[in-house]
Amino acid sequence: MFLLNKQNGVSDLVINRLPRYYRFLGELVAEGEKRISSRELSEKMGITASQIRQDLNCFGGFGQQGYGYNIDMLYEEIGKILGLDKPSKTILIGAGNLGKAIATHVSFNEKGFELIGVFDKDLSLTEKIIGELKINSMDKLEDFCLKNKPECALLCIPKTAAANVCEKLISLGIKGFWNFSHYDLSVKYKNIAVENVHLGDSLMKLSYRIKNQ
Amino acid sequence: MFLLNKQNGVSDLVINRLPRYYRFLGELVAEGEKRISSRELSEKMGITASQIRQDLNCFGGFGQQGYGYNIDMLYEEIGKILGLDKPSKTILIGAGNLGKAIATHVSFNEKGFELIGVFDKDLSLTEKIIGELKINSMDKLEDFCLKNKPECALLCIPKTAAANVCEKLISLGIKGFWNFSHYDLSVKYKNIAVENVHLGDSLMKLSYRIKNQ
Repeated sequence: MFLLNKQNGVSDLVINRLPRYYRFLGELVAEGEKRISSRELSEKMGITASQIRQDLNCFGGFGQQGYGYNIDMLYEEIGKILGLDKPSKTILIGAGNLGKAIATHVSFNEKGFELIGVFDKDLSLTEKIIGELKINSMDKLEDFCLKNKPECALLCIPKTAAANVCEKLISLGIKGFWNFSHYDLSVKYKNIAVENVHLGDSLMKLSYRIKNQ
Repeated sequence: MFLLNKQNGVSDLVINRLPRYYRFLGELVAEGEKRISSRELSEKMGITASQIRQDLNCFGGFGQQGYGYNIDMLYEEIGKILGLDKPSKTILIGAGNLGKAIATHVSFNEKGFELIGVFDKDLSLTEKIIGELKINSMDKLEDFCLKNKPECALLCIPKTAAANVCEKLISLGIKGFWNFSHYDLSVKYKNIAVENVHLGDSLMKLSYRIKNQ
């Protein structure tokens, strides 16, 4: 019933929806709910029941006819599919206003990441604390990566600095970027995992929608 | 040649790409470049030249055979399509760590918005300053909206608080939300412009990609 039969070639659109399933299921878990039909989940999430069944079938299907979904198990399985049970060691590059807010506001541990180091080229920040981590100068980066082997970098630096830093990070073994800079990593690096958070682009899209609705 | 012949029914995928065109063209403007072919733009942006021509044709087409695109004019026209020349008055709800970082880090004025008010229910923040704005208590919200008629709200509050706040904001005339909360506005409000920035979802997608690449 709860086979984790992940298929290769699952579409990005399905992957993009998984975190939202995970969030909704997490709320149901917190409320002590035990099972839910795709119809009920559909009403909560505002997507069709057949979409939900299709999405979850990509991973082997978790439901049972006439019973619906076991919430605890579905929540746990989606968490595993997302890899949340295997935290990726992560470093933050850029400890300015934005980097600091992201580092202190986001629950990395619940989302499949462990923040283990913070770096900034501004030497006036060196040794200051973000969360529980000391800010390091950039010349410590190489040694740190060789020793601690982080897999992921959170980029909160200007576009102008990002190209050089990314090249270095990739050479040091970084496999994924949570990218708040406006540097388009994926143009040059096709096989690196990148999630861009382009706050400015998001605002411009909203501007379009407000003015054209 | 540079007709702004916007058509209704332009697909979301095209709209989603416009801010990126705008960013790349802005860099070319800053570098003093005057014209560019779709092939050159394609190489810079990592998308195909035919995609670029198709996208821009949705708005009437801006290029000229054998000449390419006039960068200044294309930049300006895309800015107008996005509505960046007509700033929407915006209020920030929630002046915690994240709200403060967003308000001070993002250039609202360049993206089609004008931040005119900040509100937080935490009375210990009242009268403190974010950027150039004083933080107001939530009981000032209604009067402020009636007087200043903001169109857009930036939500940096927890999901649990968001449902009530959104209902109130919509009743006060808010037409668009830049939503950093995990409240899924669009489930209840179908006709409101919403841009969600779900930082947690973005991290979970990255977790999946790092672990499945």
